[in-house]
Amino acid sequence: MSSVVEQLEAALPRSEVSTDADVAQTYATDQAGFCRAGRAAAVVRARSVDSVQAVMRIASATGTPVVPRGAGTGLSGGANAVDGCIVLCLEKMDRILELDPSTRLARVEPGVLNGSLDRAARAHGLMYAPDPASRNISTIGGNVATNAGGACCLKYGVTRDHIARLVAVLADGSLIRTGADTVKNVAGLDLTSLLVGSEGTLAVVVEVGARLMPARPACGTMVAQFADLASAGRAIVELAGPRNLSKLEIMDRTTVRAVEAIANMDLDTSAAALLLAQVDTVDAPAIMAATEATCEALGATFVATTLDEREGELFMRARAMALPALEKQGHCLLDDVAVTIPRVPDLLELCAAVAERHQVTVGTFGHAGDGNLHPTLVYDAREPGQEAAALAAFDDIVAGTLKLGGSVTGEHGVGMLKRPHLARMLGERELGLMRGIKGVFDPGGILNPGKAY
Amino acid sequence: MSSVVEQLEAALPRSEVSTDADVAQTYATDQAGFCRAGRAAAVVRARSVDSVQAVMRIASATGTPVVPRGAGTGLSGGANAVDGCIVLCLEKMDRILELDPSTRLARVEPGVLNGSLDRAARAHGLMYAPDPASRNISTIGGNVATNAGGACCLKYGVTRDHIARLVAVLADGSLIRTGADTVKNVAGLDLTSLLVGSEGTLAVVVEVGARLMPARPACGTMVAQFADLASAGRAIVELAGPRNLSKLEIMDRTTVRAVEAIANMDLDTSAAALLLAQVDTVDAPAIMAATEATCEALGATFVATTLDEREGELFMRARAMALPALEKQGHCLLDDVAVTIPRVPDLLELCAAVAERHQVTVGTFGHAGDGNLHPTLVYDAREPGQEAAALAAFDDIVAGTLKLGGSVTGEHGVGMLKRPHLARMLGERELGLMRGIKGVFDPGGILNPGKAY
Repeated sequence: MSSVVEQLEAALPRSEVSTDADVAQTYATDQAGFCRAGRAAAVVRARSVDSVQAVMRIASATGTPVVPRGAGTGLSGGANAVDGCIVLCLEKMDRILELDPSTRLARVEPGVLNGSLDRAARAHGLMYAPDPASRNISTIGGNVATNAGGACCLKYGVTRDHIARLVAVLADGSLIRTGADTVKNVAGLDLTSLLVGSEGTLAVVVEVGARLMPARPACGTMVAQFADLASAGRAIVELAGPRNLSKLEIMDRTTVRAVEAIANMDLDTSAAALLLAQVDTVDAPAIMAATEATCEALGATFVATTLDEREGELFMRARAMALPALEKQGHCLLDDVAVTIPRVPDLLELCAAVAERHQVTVGTFGHAGDGNLHPTLVYDAREPGQEAAALAAFDDIVAGTLKLGGSVTGEHGVGMLKRPHLARMLGERELGLMRGIKGVFDPGGILNPGKAY
Repeated sequence: MSSVVEQLEAALPRSEVSTDADVAQTYATDQAGFCRAGRAAAVVRARSVDSVQAVMRIASATGTPVVPRGAGTGLSGGANAVDGCIVLCLEKMDRILELDPSTRLARVEPGVLNGSLDRAARAHGLMYAPDPASRNISTIGGNVATNAGGACCLKYGVTRDHIARLVAVLADGSLIRTGADTVKNVAGLDLTSLLVGSEGTLAVVVEVGARLMPARPACGTMVAQFADLASAGRAIVELAGPRNLSKLEIMDRTTVRAVEAIANMDLDTSAAALLLAQVDTVDAPAIMAATEATCEALGATFVATTLDEREGELFMRARAMALPALEKQGHCLLDDVAVTIPRVPDLLELCAAVAERHQVTVGTFGHAGDGNLHPTLVYDAREPGQEAAALAAFDDIVAGTLKLGGSVTGEHGVGMLKRPHLARMLGERELGLMRGIKGVFDPGGILNPGKAY
């Protein structure tokens, strides 16, 4: 019997299989910290559905674990290699197979970058709505695996809401087709929604049928500064609901200072928090005026509004730099928690209190308008005790979020990083159902073992 | 060992269990024709989660089939009794447990009518968006079971898009909680989306966490008449896309004539089709003007527009009467098929051609704007051959829809009526996965056997 590697080399085009240690190292992890990565037996950079099927047949026959991955921009270790596995990389399957403006549907391979699909759609006056911050470097396949979110979710929903159909390869190498192109479809169980967010544990997605929608330029953008977190929190509660904003983002003082340190944008580094709001409807002037008035009434120390799209993009640039800027300050442990809108002020307060209690730096930024924040612990790993303090703070933030009735992960997925927390959020019965469903798709347990649920 | 009925009577409040033959008959079917109904051993009208759990424990221990049902307004036989089963009726669990305007979430028991929840929401300036035509008589639990649609789905999506959380009882009587209140949540597989549309085959939903949204009055309504179906079809393709309409409905000549016959609304019974469009945004005047211009350019023989909400409701009344009016003309066999928007003209043509070929009356109406139509076969069951012709026409319409790349059911569900057609739409592998998932939730196969997939 030949080895797994020999079988892969015999079945696949030569250029798709690598056993090089450096290559294996490159594909061993995603962007998450604190997650163990194993040593892969081989890396397959598949270029066709046939190759993916061949990999799964060999893996199934030999009981070899398979870790599917896109661009590796994940933030919870969901794409980390396990010992002896095949890393199945889909980034070379990067063709837009079809983009039909009349049905507003695109068929794409999983390795297409989110931003590439969006740009192709915009050439037809359309857009692909889900907008993770990674959109220019993350793949649609990876977005589907984690049900990726973004800033526009308060208005347009998450990845799952924009996926019509999937083609996927099961553990045994067979191909399935889920969903329908139609807006409405109740023909059987919703396997499409089940695969979205399943973090590579059920099947390998090889084609995505994505829904596009009419592109809407940002017609109004507001930036508001607050002297204290509580006022910013109250403004979020007021604004997130009825205003039909397309984005409502927050950056706290730590984040603002980090951005100002690298970008020199004349941000007020004495402000406790900065809110950024955007609207994409024709009544933008009225909405922006009301939004500004709300912020002023709630004690904003500074408010500026623009109805110019390009100026609006400049306003939003500070937010886009939040994570890279914090990463300049030290090691970062990025969290991803979600609460209902009325609980956002409590979550902001919780993050500040945890920072104080553990004497660690927490830069909190994120999607205030949908309740999904990214408190980020910044520390110096060389200083004794700092890493332990950061980890303890991380746990406290997640535990506090659960007490607020929230979710342990809003958009990054469970991966390896949040597994202990998932078990605190879900009951044994619900986890058992998830594992039972996995058993139906992947009886041998070879697909991304040790991840998610 | 006591009988199932004796066990139910011992475990449940006296008033909840009935073995009366008339009661069993009343709860034996939903509104679908052509679906066999068996004879239930007992009808349980549960008033509490405890009762539902007790029923499932007894059913599980005795291998007794359970058919859950709400108000019985289903249109595909999904709630039909099977021989010896327990019909588990949830309509008495009809309390709105909580309605929180700040989170825009409602917790309701499954027997709450869709319209009751919507009215309760409107008292707070909110609405429950999914609007099946049955909303004043159908329950949220039934809506969840079939992933019910409605007229506003082209803009607001279907039931699944508005369900945050579910509490459900599994076949063995255990209770599960799925989903989260937060807008974003990727903590494990999406069991909520899986249960929505599962037609009572996986679990019995005992509490629904529904998302509400700001209520929006209809700011503009248009009615347009066309002398031929092809022109109406072209108008649908033009209007369904970029206009941000909240409703776009069609009635063909047969339907218009049926409505006029009972309602005397001064409808033009010579028109081949009538389109009704509504918009609920502040730019209604501009949108309505453009919509009117489009219809005129495409040959509409008459167009009227109103910006008055009440007058708009009067315009829409004709559409609400479509099915009751057709039912006055004879026996009805209501279909439910969906295609992509560019295929709507082909589907309209298909329905007309099928009527011609089988020499049966077809009244076609429905949600043109999302591609979900209800061609309705009207016949006299006492005339020899008419019923057979209607059934043959029904099959032809579904088969033709599949050829157009559509779905065999857009919003009514598979139930019993569409089971043969489902197998033509899905592959064996996909059906096998659905049955495997059912096995995880309901290993004994007691929940609504013989329905859906």
